[in-house]
Amino acid sequence: MNLNPVGTHCILELYDVDPPLLDDEPFIRSAMEQAAGKSLSTVLKVTSHKFEPQGVTALALLAESHISIHTWPENRYAAVDIFTCGETAKPEQACAFMVRQFKAGRHQLNVLRRGVGMDPERGVVPIEEKSPPAKESVLCPVHN
Amino acid sequence: MNLNPVGTHCILELYDVDPPLLDDEPFIRSAMEQAAGKSLSTVLKVTSHKFEPQGVTALALLAESHISIHTWPENRYAAVDIFTCGETAKPEQACAFMVRQFKAGRHQLNVLRRGVGMDPERGVVPIEEKSPPAKESVLCPVHN
Repeated sequence: MNLNPVGTHCILELYDVDPPLLDDEPFIRSAMEQAAGKSLSTVLKVTSHKFEPQGVTALALLAESHISIHTWPENRYAAVDIFTCGETAKPEQACAFMVRQFKAGRHQLNVLRRGVGMDPERGVVPIEEKSPPAKESVLCPVHN
Repeated sequence: MNLNPVGTHCILELYDVDPPLLDDEPFIRSAMEQAAGKSLSTVLKVTSHKFEPQGVTALALLAESHISIHTWPENRYAAVDIFTCGETAKPEQACAFMVRQFKAGRHQLNVLRRGVGMDPERGVVPIEEKSPPAKESVLCPVHN
């Protein structure tokens, strides 16, 4: 893995989603794979599970890290996370795509920086090491 | 999925880990499966990928959500996340296990609450809705 290990981990909450979308495993897998494309990431493997009586989990193993989606149709809620390392991926674009794709009435996005505590004397110096805070939090307004 | 959707998402950084451990795919898969046990969670599916020249990603799909591990042996670093929903899982126990198992010289744990913004008028009222903050952050001391 030659990508810069300092990464961006987007923690996305999707609220007020139509329940049938959240119970549609093929739709969710497809949305996840399209989201990977939007983030300029490469999907290596996908796995998913349909729960009874409802709910889906889907995981994508990326060359750049992972995407996960867990849904609760009965609560109109999906928990998404999109974690990418390297300098070219655009996980925020994938989050915006997911909000649109699931037509979420409300959403919340927290953006975390990963790996910023690496010791430069013991490894490659992450290029962004000196610039970002350890964690950034972005609260999104109600989505229309 | 009948578990309470309000969940706990542990974002764990492992630093100063011996590189061979971080390039050992069977060890990493085993650690992840054992960690699921420590968190009182049930593994439904596991997938992993060995990168060239080095690095491993492993994902576990749990009945309670997921565990992911991404490693950078060249940086002595692993990014772990353990996300569980429901009232019985103990993801913090899994994090403590991972720190021990990888003999991390340093680690950092951020604990996020997921799904706390659900609208009780549109779904099941999450039982912890009134108590926790939207996000808790716990910085751990240097591990000896």
